[in-house]
Amino acid sequence: METAFFEIAGGVTAPKGFRASAVRSGIREALSARNDLGLVISDFPAVAAATFTTNKIKAAPVRVSAAHLRASDTRAIIANSGNANACTGSTGIQNAKRMAQAVARQLGLKDRQVLVCSTGRIGRDLPIEKIEMAVPALVAGLNSGGSEVVARAIMTSDTFHKEIAVEIPLAGANVRIGGIAKGAGMINPDMATMLCFITTDAPISKRELQKLTSASVEQSFNRVTVDGDMSTNDTAICIANGQAAIPVMEPGQHSYDKFAQALNFVMRQLARMIVEDGEGVTKFVEVHVKGAATYQDARKAAEAVANSMLVKCAWYGEDPNWGRIMDAVGYSSAKVREEMIDIFFDGVAATQHGLLSSTPENTLKEILRNKKFTVTIDLHLGSAEYKVFTTDLTPEYVKFNMGE
Amino acid sequence: METAFFEIAGGVTAPKGFRASAVRSGIREALSARNDLGLVISDFPAVAAATFTTNKIKAAPVRVSAAHLRASDTRAIIANSGNANACTGSTGIQNAKRMAQAVARQLGLKDRQVLVCSTGRIGRDLPIEKIEMAVPALVAGLNSGGSEVVARAIMTSDTFHKEIAVEIPLAGANVRIGGIAKGAGMINPDMATMLCFITTDAPISKRELQKLTSASVEQSFNRVTVDGDMSTNDTAICIANGQAAIPVMEPGQHSYDKFAQALNFVMRQLARMIVEDGEGVTKFVEVHVKGAATYQDARKAAEAVANSMLVKCAWYGEDPNWGRIMDAVGYSSAKVREEMIDIFFDGVAATQHGLLSSTPENTLKEILRNKKFTVTIDLHLGSAEYKVFTTDLTPEYVKFNMGE
Repeated sequence: METAFFEIAGGVTAPKGFRASAVRSGIREALSARNDLGLVISDFPAVAAATFTTNKIKAAPVRVSAAHLRASDTRAIIANSGNANACTGSTGIQNAKRMAQAVARQLGLKDRQVLVCSTGRIGRDLPIEKIEMAVPALVAGLNSGGSEVVARAIMTSDTFHKEIAVEIPLAGANVRIGGIAKGAGMINPDMATMLCFITTDAPISKRELQKLTSASVEQSFNRVTVDGDMSTNDTAICIANGQAAIPVMEPGQHSYDKFAQALNFVMRQLARMIVEDGEGVTKFVEVHVKGAATYQDARKAAEAVANSMLVKCAWYGEDPNWGRIMDAVGYSSAKVREEMIDIFFDGVAATQHGLLSSTPENTLKEILRNKKFTVTIDLHLGSAEYKVFTTDLTPEYVKFNMGE
Repeated sequence: METAFFEIAGGVTAPKGFRASAVRSGIREALSARNDLGLVISDFPAVAAATFTTNKIKAAPVRVSAAHLRASDTRAIIANSGNANACTGSTGIQNAKRMAQAVARQLGLKDRQVLVCSTGRIGRDLPIEKIEMAVPALVAGLNSGGSEVVARAIMTSDTFHKEIAVEIPLAGANVRIGGIAKGAGMINPDMATMLCFITTDAPISKRELQKLTSASVEQSFNRVTVDGDMSTNDTAICIANGQAAIPVMEPGQHSYDKFAQALNFVMRQLARMIVEDGEGVTKFVEVHVKGAATYQDARKAAEAVANSMLVKCAWYGEDPNWGRIMDAVGYSSAKVREEMIDIFFDGVAATQHGLLSSTPENTLKEILRNKKFTVTIDLHLGSAEYKVFTTDLTPEYVKFNMGE
């Protein structure tokens, strides 16, 4: 079988014509030595696609980027950590615009060519002067190996930076896709305190890029959940500068399909890294609902199980408590028939026809001792299914989130 | 002003013609010396009303009691702790029927005159023989001061028993209402791992009793939430034997209004006790959403805030983090306009017009140090409001719920 794509180093600067850099502007308290400001640029005008939080309370940078996204000659993404610039009113909007403008001026671009993202605490004004003062150094530092420092600069409570790149061998030339992301805490379907920047040198129309980006987000970031909360700032941006020497990719073409497949892979890998870095978690659990009457039923049941505090506590305790899973399925509003439900841990039956299975409890307990396992819930009512990737709930999660 | 009612001792045996008792049947492991089986009877045929869990997975006793509730000559409620008799299939139904039957035989009643409730772990067959063997002693022990032992026998992880009674002075005779309840963990709107038994000597039709019971449950048990989960066994039962020497109460009458008011009070007090006994919690928080465009909006926003893990962690940390509250309001699907939202802790503004208020953070932190406080969220879009009573999320909650 032909290799569809393979992983390479370099993150968002792996594709042709991208550079990146990061600096410390001082958004965080004086004692922190961490970089807090990152910049990714395309040396050529690029088309951009994005999906933003579905939260009705949207941060200022989300609003500004959504407006700037109408341009078809995007060049840069600037992002800061340490302050979300959310719930900051008209001052927040001004500050987000000034953040884009600072980069535009330094690089001789129009403001609309710069997208802007923020992550951090909600409700405090962005120290915009600090950011403006740092932009010249940020631009001066741009280099073709800068992906990792940006991936690190946008981290908040993340314990490791999240970065990936792939190369797709195509007749004529290779296409590359690079990505970085930050997450940790407040991770839920519909994008949550999550930033993801994808770069590619693929030649593709803005319209097709948006279609593929939306589809990939649905299959990746919208399938991970840590605590069911959704943030005001979530943004996934994909920019394509067309520098790979192949014809523009169109639906139905071989190149298009391979690109779509690789983009899915990139986003799924980043989404998994985010869950694996969930605050204080110890278990990584795939919840797979199948046999549902409808897709929505499968989704509702999977999300109810994945977000149930009691189910997540039982996982932390390595307790194969299927009653709590039945309970969550029952209140999920999905159509279910109790006597049809089978539940499996890593394929081993815990529940058959809605009743305790004959599997010895110790066999199930041993599976729960693994760091990763799958919970499969077969409703036996149809053929719809849904998968979501989640974690346990731990005392450390609570301690981690009890303060700023 | 006339006293509408006042509290008295005696719980469910305070009203005329009720007796109760409890025994240890051995449902729990051999080492536990706790009673696990309770019985409340009316010495006269009574009308009964009930609300049951809305979970689609309903425990066997819920199904059996719902059927028995069609009778208009109810005499008894039998309840066990230690086993939920949920997800137990046809054996479970048989066992729930046998539990009612055991009481009926011993007292010379029809099976339908006995309601049955269970609470405990899901998915294990009820040790019905142990229960049947214990019923003669249970019946022999019935006495007019037995309320407290039943309140204790139905406790699972509860740390204190929940009991109340009130007397309503009326021209002619006094009417009494008594109640016991159990809760702790898995407490959520729509009734959750919650049992509540209310007795009264009021003369009232079955139809009116059901109306008042449903309304009171909506204003009490459906307004408390600990973790957002909903159980398979939740049941609130109200039985009225008409032994108070007053005319049958009808809507529009003074006696009916006073009774309704007192019944509300009884259920609200029991609901508050349940939240105050939430597993491992340290804060008791009233979330009050007002100024919503619709009642459903107010409810959705209040429940999103009350069930947000991140908001609850911040309360545990005594952090007046209003950004997480804004975030939850934003994803609640309620209609909101960010720039209209005010948030108050105990009436002190944390957020005004969607922005950080001028209140010094230390003033807010001091409020969060209290064991009880109110979070008021004014959406300024209409006049609908909703209140829900909830708790923080603590490391102890997680530890408590990690195993059986």
